Amino acid sequence: MLICSCSFLKAAEPFISTKKSPGVLTVKEHSVQLTLYCNEGIDKGIQRAALNLQSDFEKVTGISPQLVHQNPNSPTSLIIIGTIGTKSIIDELVKQKKIDEKELNGKREKFIIQNVKNPFSGIDEAIVIAGSDKRGTIYGIYEFSKQIGVSPWYYWADVPIEHKDNLYFKEGVYTDGDPAVKYRGIFLNDEWPCLGSWSSATFGGFNSRFYEKVFELLLRLKANYMWPAMWGSAFYDDDPANGPLADEMGIIMGTSHHEPMAMAQQDWHRYTRKNNLSEIWDYTKNKDVLQKSWQYGIERAKDWEKVVTIGMRGDGDEAMSEGTNVALLEQIVKDQRTIIEKVTGKKADKTLQLWALYKEVQDYYDKGMRVPDDVILLYCDDNWGNVRKLPNLNAKPRKGGYGMYYHFDYVGAPRNSKWINITQIQRTWEQMNLTYEYGVRELWVVNVGDLKPTMEYPISFFLDMAWNPQRFNESNLFQHTVDFCKQQFGGNYAEEAARLIDTYTKYNRRVTPEMLNDKTYSLENYNEWQRVKDDYVALSLDALKLYYLMPVDYRDAFDQLVLFPIQACANLYDMYYAVAMNRKLAVTADVQANKWADKVREYFERDSILTWHYNHVMSGGKWNHIMD
Amino acid sequence: MLICSCSFLKAAEPFISTKKSPGVLTVKEHSVQLTLYCNEGIDKGIQRAALNLQSDFEKVTGISPQLVHQNPNSPTSLIIIGTIGTKSIIDELVKQKKIDEKELNGKREKFIIQNVKNPFSGIDEAIVIAGSDKRGTIYGIYEFSKQIGVSPWYYWADVPIEHKDNLYFKEGVYTDGDPAVKYRGIFLNDEWPCLGSWSSATFGGFNSRFYEKVFELLLRLKANYMWPAMWGSAFYDDDPANGPLADEMGIIMGTSHHEPMAMAQQDWHRYTRKNNLSEIWDYTKNKDVLQKSWQYGIERAKDWEKVVTIGMRGDGDEAMSEGTNVALLEQIVKDQRTIIEKVTGKKADKTLQLWALYKEVQDYYDKGMRVPDDVILLYCDDNWGNVRKLPNLNAKPRKGGYGMYYHFDYVGAPRNSKWINITQIQRTWEQMNLTYEYGVRELWVVNVGDLKPTMEYPISFFLDMAWNPQRFNESNLFQHTVDFCKQQFGGNYAEEAARLIDTYTKYNRRVTPEMLNDKTYSLENYNEWQRVKDDYVALSLDALKLYYLMPVDYRDAFDQLVLFPIQACANLYDMYYAVAMNRKLAVTADVQANKWADKVREYFERDSILTWHYNHVMSGGKWNHIMD
Repeated sequence: MLICSCSFLKAAEPFISTKKSPGVLTVKEHSVQLTLYCNEGIDKGIQRAALNLQSDFEKVTGISPQLVHQNPNSPTSLIIIGTIGTKSIIDELVKQKKIDEKELNGKREKFIIQNVKNPFSGIDEAIVIAGSDKRGTIYGIYEFSKQIGVSPWYYWADVPIEHKDNLYFKEGVYTDGDPAVKYRGIFLNDEWPCLGSWSSATFGGFNSRFYEKVFELLLRLKANYMWPAMWGSAFYDDDPANGPLADEMGIIMGTSHHEPMAMAQQDWHRYTRKNNLSEIWDYTKNKDVLQKSWQYGIERAKDWEKVVTIGMRGDGDEAMSEGTNVALLEQIVKDQRTIIEKVTGKKADKTLQLWALYKEVQDYYDKGMRVPDDVILLYCDDNWGNVRKLPNLNAKPRKGGYGMYYHFDYVGAPRNSKWINITQIQRTWEQMNLTYEYGVRELWVVNVGDLKPTMEYPISFFLDMAWNPQRFNESNLFQHTVDFCKQQFGGNYAEEAARLIDTYTKYNRRVTPEMLNDKTYSLENYNEWQRVKDDYVALSLDALKLYYLMPVDYRDAFDQLVLFPIQACANLYDMYYAVAMNRKLAVTADVQANKWADKVREYFERDSILTWHYNHVMSGGKWNHIMD
Repeated sequence: MLICSCSFLKAAEPFISTKKSPGVLTVKEHSVQLTLYCNEGIDKGIQRAALNLQSDFEKVTGISPQLVHQNPNSPTSLIIIGTIGTKSIIDELVKQKKIDEKELNGKREKFIIQNVKNPFSGIDEAIVIAGSDKRGTIYGIYEFSKQIGVSPWYYWADVPIEHKDNLYFKEGVYTDGDPAVKYRGIFLNDEWPCLGSWSSATFGGFNSRFYEKVFELLLRLKANYMWPAMWGSAFYDDDPANGPLADEMGIIMGTSHHEPMAMAQQDWHRYTRKNNLSEIWDYTKNKDVLQKSWQYGIERAKDWEKVVTIGMRGDGDEAMSEGTNVALLEQIVKDQRTIIEKVTGKKADKTLQLWALYKEVQDYYDKGMRVPDDVILLYCDDNWGNVRKLPNLNAKPRKGGYGMYYHFDYVGAPRNSKWINITQIQRTWEQMNLTYEYGVRELWVVNVGDLKPTMEYPISFFLDMAWNPQRFNESNLFQHTVDFCKQQFGGNYAEEAARLIDTYTKYNRRVTPEMLNDKTYSLENYNEWQRVKDDYVALSLDALKLYYLMPVDYRDAFDQLVLFPIQACANLYDMYYAVAMNRKLAVTADVQANKWADKVREYFERDSILTWHYNHVMSGGKWNHIMD
């Protein structure tokens, strides 16, 4: 049986079952002691993930397995964790041909999960989670965790963990392959007042306690990269533990598209003030100070996995002054690379760099500006989810490759979009599929605003797509939404919850909540205003009906992920429709206008009540401020 | 202060506060031990109520007060409970002029609640609950319980009990006066499959465990009378503890309008079968057996408070055979009274009796049939809440007075009404106000079906009105609904909850859910069908919105009392509207008819899901079967 199942690899299909049947191994049964084993001296990031798996097992079964570092004494159920090429038990199993070396050797961020006979003397059979490298092993651990029933969103969306007495492993070799896009991550941005106030109240700020939760989420979602919050924050400086933590856990840090040389914008201000230096952010006037600060930035981060942003924009994410020319920018990049070489003692191309063609920088590129071939060229969307530029299909390959900076959330003209999710995954798929097909495969990063309210699902979709875009096509997108809902709310409610997400994002992309007003739709044209309003109100009834039928434990998760955005937006439609009616009737001095004015007030107040409920009542007030 | 406040009596206004202020006494404060005191040998029904008060205090404050029967040793907080004229501490306090004798002496079912100085040596001040008689004292105890925050519906509608650390009594003398209607009660009827299956599953049947809960509810609502369940049940025979329990707790039992001589219909069948006698329910053919069974009935119940139904209808609540004549019926009544005299050894008029003018019996009355003057003449509505007959305004007084048998629930032509509440309190007020004004003040009894689902509020209103009909007028009815909702859901949600009850009962009285079908409204006439359907659907959204905002603890109570009936009926409107659309479109072979057919199925299924939710999920499945 085992040899047979070893001869082929399955995608990470369901391998955990709660029913015992032929060809399955006991992971955990009522009376069976489960043990997790990894070598002494295992990588600290893997050790952290293994501790989370231990705690996840406890959440699922009520019993915490032992985590041991020495050959265990004949437990009846054993999970072995390790990375190939680290002189661990995994190498031993490879040597014994119990694990297929070619599945892991030279691969990137890949795991296999399989059963193995006689891994140690005295142990008949065990389950092995083996990685091609650190993150491969970590992703394997979290795949296991997900399959025993812990949602990647358990913390960030209060997804309940269903108790299971028994867990069995279906014999076989399982893997998710390796990722299609090398660097996959998010950008926490526009983070005040919501995420900022919440993190302050919950963790005391954007510190390592906060980032530990973010990194864990990212790893559970198989991401590896991020741009940290930077509105008034400086990741490396706010908490000296932030940088080492990211590196230890396995997250590759960047700074945002306009923050060069591993220095947050705030770092620049803090650095110059602290050293009593000129704060002028202009390379023609303050070159020495800028170079010093960049050297400081590269030195600080030199031991950690990172992607260094190069180039320069104006201060505060604005365009540089009009006089900026391509020659100057090319000189800046050259000087930045000199600093990198000086600090690292290695050729510049040994340090991962990106240059972002954001807004006006794309114009410089169009005017002919170029950066060295090893630098990732980061294309950008138009801030509204429409990709602006892609490489030519027949462009000759770049060593650094291409990246894409995408937006779910945006602060800027014509009006911010940072309240409720406006992202249809259909649009994301269409644009990112195009992106992938045009060869943009080195780095994908998406601006997710406050991460929460209501960005949870598009984040999941974006990262799943970054792992394997070719999984998706125009006919199976809805199934992804259903699967996501199944993971968060269970099978009985998934189809309807997915329809709700699908429909509300459709409505919110006709016009964003922030752009909606009383004039958006016509009162006259076949009752257009009333019809769009009634549609949203009907959707809110459907959402409340599902909320009502859902087991109490699942309601908070459903509220954050589905119900709140629908209720809040339906209420907004109610409000603006009432504004429209009020204004229409006021023109003819119709006293009914007053009735509609009262309704406007009522909906305005209801908005505040919904917000209050999200912040203070839902999940026992855990998310206070996130809906500020 | 005390002398001053004793000089006038207040209606039972709020006398409990959670804030300490001048002129208040501590009932219960963090560190203060509360003691309940009643004399040794106090009536067992009062003792039961006092034990419930003890347990209610524990539910509210977390600490159970002591219940003592001897002069307590200087507790700092004391509540004295007793009845005037029972050689208790109350008589002692009357003698000392600390309680005003004339407030209680010769009164019926009246309580006063007041503070008293130095009731015993060593006790500076205490609170006294004093009754004019047994039920007066019991009602006083439950008034206290209600005011500390225990809803009369706490058990029957899962109304949460809010925790309060501190309770204070505002000095004064409080009373609700005595009742306007002498016998006030309910009839549990049409009780299968719902109440019957629930009581079987919960208590093992309509036994004394079940009735204890019913009687407690009735006493908390200041009722004193009831007709027990009789579809296949025989109250006295099903559980020999039933009769003594009613008498002990203070509930006056009757049998329904067509069950004479304290014998349930089932008693007749059981009696004749057990004794191998003829089962023919015909006085012309089986007089001896009938008389024997009636004698058995009166003997069995002779020691208990009761109202004896006299007269005779056909078996199974049908009219008697056509040949029945007035002379025969008058003879039956005469013979029944002879049996009563024989068993009790007293004049017949010493036993409380009623004769019900139900359906065809009213025709006999109209044809001239009369019963002795001491018998209560029980008028009836038309089963649909419309009073059929009332005494002449200038009729000479009857010694037995008049009663009214009213319906909230009905099994019969044209179609049953036993699912969702169809009673608008406005109609009840209008009809029962007329009833009261025409001098029908001896006995009010209302058919409440299964008691629960959704009959809770009309029951509360009916019994409040029976206590004091003159409290109500056409302008303050809605306030009663608000107050009811405040008691069950707290102040923040009361107005909106009351509007929801008010509106859904209006909708349900346009046409009962059982009578609604696809032809009830017009599809053509100004979209009538769609408009009534949309109104109900909009109400269901309002109800769900309130449910969503309500604290989790209150949701089950709100569900049973407000949300479920609205959701279930809105769904029914959705369904029949879809039937109407389907049939309309099918006529022209429009394929859209199929879409509506699918919707019919969907709503049909939703009805079953809502029912399942009521039975199995709401309140943790406590009410399983009540929504069968």
